[in-house]
Amino acid sequence: MCRLLAYLGSPISLERLLYTPEHSLIVQSYQPQEMISGVVNADGFGIGWYHAQKDTEPFIYKHILPIWNDQNLPYLSRYVESGRILGYVRSATTGQALDFSNSQPFQYQRLLFTHNGRIENFRQTLYRPIRNQLSNEIYQSIKGSTDSEHIFALLLNQWQSHPAKSVEQALHITLFHLLELAAEYESDVSANIILSDGDRLIACRFSSKSPAPSLYWLENDSNFPDSVIIASEPIFNGNWTTCPENSIISVGEDRVIQVEHI
Amino acid sequence: MCRLLAYLGSPISLERLLYTPEHSLIVQSYQPQEMISGVVNADGFGIGWYHAQKDTEPFIYKHILPIWNDQNLPYLSRYVESGRILGYVRSATTGQALDFSNSQPFQYQRLLFTHNGRIENFRQTLYRPIRNQLSNEIYQSIKGSTDSEHIFALLLNQWQSHPAKSVEQALHITLFHLLELAAEYESDVSANIILSDGDRLIACRFSSKSPAPSLYWLENDSNFPDSVIIASEPIFNGNWTTCPENSIISVGEDRVIQVEHI
Amino acid sequence: MCRLLAYLGSPISLERLLYTPEHSLIVQSYQPQEMISGVVNADGFGIGWYHAQKDTEPFIYKHILPIWNDQNLPYLSRYVESGRILGYVRSATTGQALDFSNSQPFQYQRLLFTHNGRIENFRQTLYRPIRNQLSNEIYQSIKGSTDSEHIFALLLNQWQSHPAKSVEQALHITLFHLLELAAEYESDVSANIILSDGDRLIACRFSSKSPAPSLYWLENDSNFPDSVIIASEPIFNGNWTTCPENSIISVGEDRVIQVEHI
Amino acid sequence: MCRLLAYLGSPISLERLLYTPEHSLIVQSYQPQEMISGVVNADGFGIGWYHAQKDTEPFIYKHILPIWNDQNLPYLSRYVESGRILGYVRSATTGQALDFSNSQPFQYQRLLFTHNGRIENFRQTLYRPIRNQLSNEIYQSIKGSTDSEHIFALLLNQWQSHPAKSVEQALHITLFHLLELAAEYESDVSANIILSDGDRLIACRFSSKSPAPSLYWLENDSNFPDSVIIASEPIFNGNWTTCPENSIISVGEDRVIQVEHI
Repeated sequence: MCRLLAYLGSPISLERLLYTPEHSLIVQSYQPQEMISGVVNADGFGIGWYHAQKDTEPFIYKHILPIWNDQNLPYLSRYVESGRILGYVRSATTGQALDFSNSQPFQYQRLLFTHNGRIENFRQTLYRPIRNQLSNEIYQSIKGSTDSEHIFALLLNQWQSHPAKSVEQALHITLFHLLELAAEYESDVSANIILSDGDRLIACRFSSKSPAPSLYWLENDSNFPDSVIIASEPIFNGNWTTCPENSIISVGEDRVIQVEHI
Repeated sequence: MCRLLAYLGSPISLERLLYTPEHSLIVQSYQPQEMISGVVNADGFGIGWYHAQKDTEPFIYKHILPIWNDQNLPYLSRYVESGRILGYVRSATTGQALDFSNSQPFQYQRLLFTHNGRIENFRQTLYRPIRNQLSNEIYQSIKGSTDSEHIFALLLNQWQSHPAKSVEQALHITLFHLLELAAEYESDVSANIILSDGDRLIACRFSSKSPAPSLYWLENDSNFPDSVIIASEPIFNGNWTTCPENSIISVGEDRVIQVEHI
Repeated sequence: MCRLLAYLGSPISLERLLYTPEHSLIVQSYQPQEMISGVVNADGFGIGWYHAQKDTEPFIYKHILPIWNDQNLPYLSRYVESGRILGYVRSATTGQALDFSNSQPFQYQRLLFTHNGRIENFRQTLYRPIRNQLSNEIYQSIKGSTDSEHIFALLLNQWQSHPAKSVEQALHITLFHLLELAAEYESDVSANIILSDGDRLIACRFSSKSPAPSLYWLENDSNFPDSVIIASEPIFNGNWTTCPENSIISVGEDRVIQVEHI
Repeated sequence: MCRLLAYLGSPISLERLLYTPEHSLIVQSYQPQEMISGVVNADGFGIGWYHAQKDTEPFIYKHILPIWNDQNLPYLSRYVESGRILGYVRSATTGQALDFSNSQPFQYQRLLFTHNGRIENFRQTLYRPIRNQLSNEIYQSIKGSTDSEHIFALLLNQWQSHPAKSVEQALHITLFHLLELAAEYESDVSANIILSDGDRLIACRFSSKSPAPSLYWLENDSNFPDSVIIASEPIFNGNWTTCPENSIISVGEDRVIQVEHI
């Protein structure tokens, strides 16, 4: 399990999103309240963001330390301003290495990707079958060893094979495909995902076995007007909506949440 | 707050002490049960031990990562065998740097020292007064910036000024001295300490304001026969004795706990 | 020994300053050409910068890894744009801890400070005398254990005691004072310093024993028009001026280098 | 390029092997003399050793910091005594992540493995073809992303498929196989390898294009009587033998070097 956070709205400083809320991602790292497994999210963290003015590839800052211990983040949080932000604190599956390459978000060109969940018994089940299906380009782009990065690879592979499809459609097909693979190789999959292409946020709450990990969204709160926040746990009290299990949500410039059942 | 552990007995592998018990120091790092402040002990750790056969200075292994994330420790725990072991998981006071130099145990010649507690508002109160009292040798030996290391420095200074005194006596006087300083500079002190010279374990449970942090000992348990274990929290169910508040305990070759009220 | 770099001019991306030049700070970290002692600068690094538009305290990014190994820096270098930048790669004095707190730049309010050089036998000579002269506020602000940070503390102390003086004047007096202390305690001092208050760059090339470490400046190069660069080693071929030994240089909005002999 | 070191003989402390020699592995990390590419070996390090008395799996201590910066290693070097030791300092191929999982030695059951060299353009050439040939067990055991670990995997795969073969034979076949793969996928391979099963040291100096990286051995030097040392560069002046290019050497209990041309 890990904790995810995403913001789409007018540009704000990272500081406001990461440090100010009373149940911020930083608090969720040492005192989460809705974890299905694991007790803390202290196995590294990462922040991804898009430039507020320039149309470029996104930016990433990651570390293997607990987020509360990083002494650079307060400076960066005061400096960075963005309208498209993804945040992540990690709770590594037992036995997974604390490698930098295993920290999220993962990036591929303009896409940023974060994942909370797991493929049960990943190494012995879907690890090789997933890799075998990848194009050489996607195969070679994998840097770490987590189930999360392989789910992202599968999504990229799907998306690149069908360039006419939207990211939502590619995600939809990828989740179905994961279900099939999990059935074939006797595994289980839970996949709460938040990703962005810089314009939209796309997220899903998904599990082959109920319950799926928690996921919420908040629209146009007075603290963050004209914005949408998606999070594993509400970061402050407000009018949060529970994301239905097994659904994909997406939101763009118009700040209107689209919900699609899988 | 941090969690402390010490072992005196016939040589055992670190693995048995650190990994086997159900509420081991590793579990206490992410799920402690008796913390007065703080929620996890994930700001680094350290192990100190004495050679089982050779009469040399002790050995230390420290890291700034959470203890459960270190991939060397399982190897070392399988390799190291010792009859005098100190263990420590850190919960850093807010604002204290996660520097390697701030990890415990601290060593001075044959002494190993660990501390759980704090000097309230240390930087603004006792930091400079403590340093001003130190001999040049002890002053120059300080490597980090924690209250813990400065308590150790004060103890070393006391001990070196009165070489005829035992470590227990030096500790006793040091605690009194800390009380005086705390009163003079309007601070509070809590100091659960475990230290060793390679022959004996000496520990104290001490606070200028009740309650002191928790401390227990266990003698000759069937799992660890002919030994004494001292710990912030029992590492498994057994016949643990609660260390009285404001007392110094010590134990040596005869495995008999001496208790002295401060 | 370490390597220093500073830029004052119109805002540029860190990337252009750090990655593009053929003998960049990154190359100087593994293949420096003018080191007096040490062979590489692989003991951490740091970048400090001021906001290009906002009048706020500066920003810092530091790490204990070799600069070439940090996987966040390429992202940050692409994101950060500034007209006042300080860069630093460290070659730690033997025995100095690789603590995060010992990485430079050091910051105090609006000041950023970097130092290349050393106080010979620092711990045994000027460590305690310098600290004894500091105001409580400056004393308590010291986080690490390097000679560099203590030189900065001495400068801050001088500056705060004489608020009417400029930073240049405070630096001038501090260097004299260091000379006196070095004579009294039989040490030697070399201090190439670059610091900034966000408006000006102030630097010195200074040593109690010749030769001082190398220092150069470059004005209005065609690659970086309307700017001044100060560096331990030229970062590319150009019309670099060697900073005279035992002098203070400073430059502000007008891009005119002022040279003052000490 | 990296630097390798191995010792077989009567048990000695790591300290004697790692710290005492004038051109020790530690010196070779910042000032190597025979590197074909790269200038320093500061991208992490690792030590592997076998227990001097017990018949168990070997022990590993690795880190991503430069070897000279690790403050635990002096303690461990004073503690560990062994008659079978492998040492390694890393110079990462540009673009390879500084992940802990990418540090050597690699271990598989009783085998320890270190590699100096590279598969040219690994990701785009042999990465996938090598993986495709592996048994599921070996495939799933890969933790990092280096060419080195994949060469080890290929060797393990060969060895497990032909249990009657010796490690030397498996290595021999693996190198041939690498040559074939390199020809097929238009790559080049250089592979100086040292490995051990706890009884013997087996090493090779191998390259598909001359020159191969340097490799030497030393037998029964007066400083290390009754021992064999194999190293990328002599660690002190002595009667070192240059390992012939494209040959496999091995040595066991009798301290007699066997040389086999490939």
